[in-house]
Amino acid sequence: MFLEHEPTKQDIIDAHERIRKQIHHTPILSSTSVNQIAGCKIYFKCENFQKVGAFKFRGASNAILSLGEKVLKDGVATHSSGNHASALALASNMKNVPAYIVMPHTAPQIKKSAVESYGAKIIFCELTLQSREETLAKVVNETSSVFVHPFDNYSVIAGQATCAKEILEELTDLDYIIAPVGGGGLASGSCLSAKYFSNKTRVLGAEPEGADDAFRSLRDNTIYPSVNPKTICDGLLTNLSDKTFNILNKELKEIITVTDEKIIFAMRLIWERMKIIVEPSSAVTLAVVLDNKEIFAGKKICTILTGGNVDLEKYFGM
Amino acid sequence: MFLEHEPTKQDIIDAHERIRKQIHHTPILSSTSVNQIAGCKIYFKCENFQKVGAFKFRGASNAILSLGEKVLKDGVATHSSGNHASALALASNMKNVPAYIVMPHTAPQIKKSAVESYGAKIIFCELTLQSREETLAKVVNETSSVFVHPFDNYSVIAGQATCAKEILEELTDLDYIIAPVGGGGLASGSCLSAKYFSNKTRVLGAEPEGADDAFRSLRDNTIYPSVNPKTICDGLLTNLSDKTFNILNKELKEIITVTDEKIIFAMRLIWERMKIIVEPSSAVTLAVVLDNKEIFAGKKICTILTGGNVDLEKYFGM
Repeated sequence: MFLEHEPTKQDIIDAHERIRKQIHHTPILSSTSVNQIAGCKIYFKCENFQKVGAFKFRGASNAILSLGEKVLKDGVATHSSGNHASALALASNMKNVPAYIVMPHTAPQIKKSAVESYGAKIIFCELTLQSREETLAKVVNETSSVFVHPFDNYSVIAGQATCAKEILEELTDLDYIIAPVGGGGLASGSCLSAKYFSNKTRVLGAEPEGADDAFRSLRDNTIYPSVNPKTICDGLLTNLSDKTFNILNKELKEIITVTDEKIIFAMRLIWERMKIIVEPSSAVTLAVVLDNKEIFAGKKICTILTGGNVDLEKYFGM
Repeated sequence: MFLEHEPTKQDIIDAHERIRKQIHHTPILSSTSVNQIAGCKIYFKCENFQKVGAFKFRGASNAILSLGEKVLKDGVATHSSGNHASALALASNMKNVPAYIVMPHTAPQIKKSAVESYGAKIIFCELTLQSREETLAKVVNETSSVFVHPFDNYSVIAGQATCAKEILEELTDLDYIIAPVGGGGLASGSCLSAKYFSNKTRVLGAEPEGADDAFRSLRDNTIYPSVNPKTICDGLLTNLSDKTFNILNKELKEIITVTDEKIIFAMRLIWERMKIIVEPSSAVTLAVVLDNKEIFAGKKICTILTGGNVDLEKYFGM
């Protein structure tokens, strides 16, 4: 079953063993010219090369592989129109388990196609939170499937933590790991791995100014909802949950926010100089570094490139 | 001085030792979903991650590092508005050697800026072959610099050959290496490395239908000029030279041509599935594989992704 407590060091080691065969051990890249521009040594953990093109496959895999065959036979369910949906769909498919994905009927066709290509069933809902929750509850009730929350789930958090664990196994004297903050699953998992697997490395969160609910939540010690977020970072629109808030509140050094304009600049820099495709939500970390050079001067940093799922129609469309 | 004979096995080994410290040993990537689509096992040698974003840095580096200090003090010169220009500019810069690059005044600003950013001097010419050759001759005469031809130069060919050498050191039982054919420097170097460093692997050339002069030249055993080539592959517009024609004529298995439409499809597939940026000239190899599934079914292939220099204004421009 799912972990019922904040992941321990052993829980994260176990998660890594559990998912190791089915995830990619993604490479860590760097660029001389990006280092020159930034004035520090930046490594990039390329989860855009992860299966389904995003780190979310780690958490979804650990969640599914933590459930017994008996529980799994009725399948899993979630609500998401983003990378968690694809991740849960593929991880289910690899175990021959049904997956039910609730998403708004307005979700882009490219997202629907990705989820369907992994064999999951899509159930459409209205755009409201109420419709999403009611639809999910109905699906879970009718199918007896298990709800896998995108981040408010300790097994998912332990899965996401394996990313920072890999970083710390490869790079031993990092000053900072920087993770984008949406619901906080990756950031809180990274905090736990830094605590357990490093003596020196601190974790920083990066958030778009137009979706700074996590920044405000930690500052004011209360979970704010994400109301009408305005950012290009479509993976960072959700607010924190109880589980992620509590971990970040104890372990995260701080969250730094940055404008969309600077995020787009950083994203273009990654595409141009590193020749890799990252989504806007991934570029918020480099944007924070470039916007705060005095903090990072001479430091050794690893940013997590969380995903590479962008709609390329704009480039290739005729 | 430059090699004056077709590179031997030892010449390629020496070239690799000579340039090893200043080039990137680029990774070889693969994608389960691309393999499924293609029906064979395809590896991608990522020269888009090479310095200056293209394999050309290997040949330019070997050329410059093959020249003595006395010869080098007056610098090097070439005509190119593409990746060879950037490659020669950077390799010269790393040895503190002046570089003179002749390019048409109509060259895109992005190409001019790249060359200038590496400290080279640009000399503009008219669009005609005559103007280009006269301008180059004048520059060489006035500066006493050494002309480094983009491909009709055995030291350049030996440098490009190190790419296939790295492939064959990592992948021992390949059926084919597929290289794009422009002037033929990479393809002929790849042929030599396959001959020297493998018992089994054959080299295939890939060429756009709209610039199929090399295909016709090898078929008819004569070097045709490239007249009004029509293709999106801006790195594959030139014709073969004596040196590259002679090597390809002896060693290349064959050249297969493919339409631009299929090249664009293959390019998009690489961007979407592999999350890496390649230029159109790089995608011609995958396009050939996808267009000839019966030839490649079940085979083990490595295609060379020659470069990643594309103008991203179309994606990021406002």
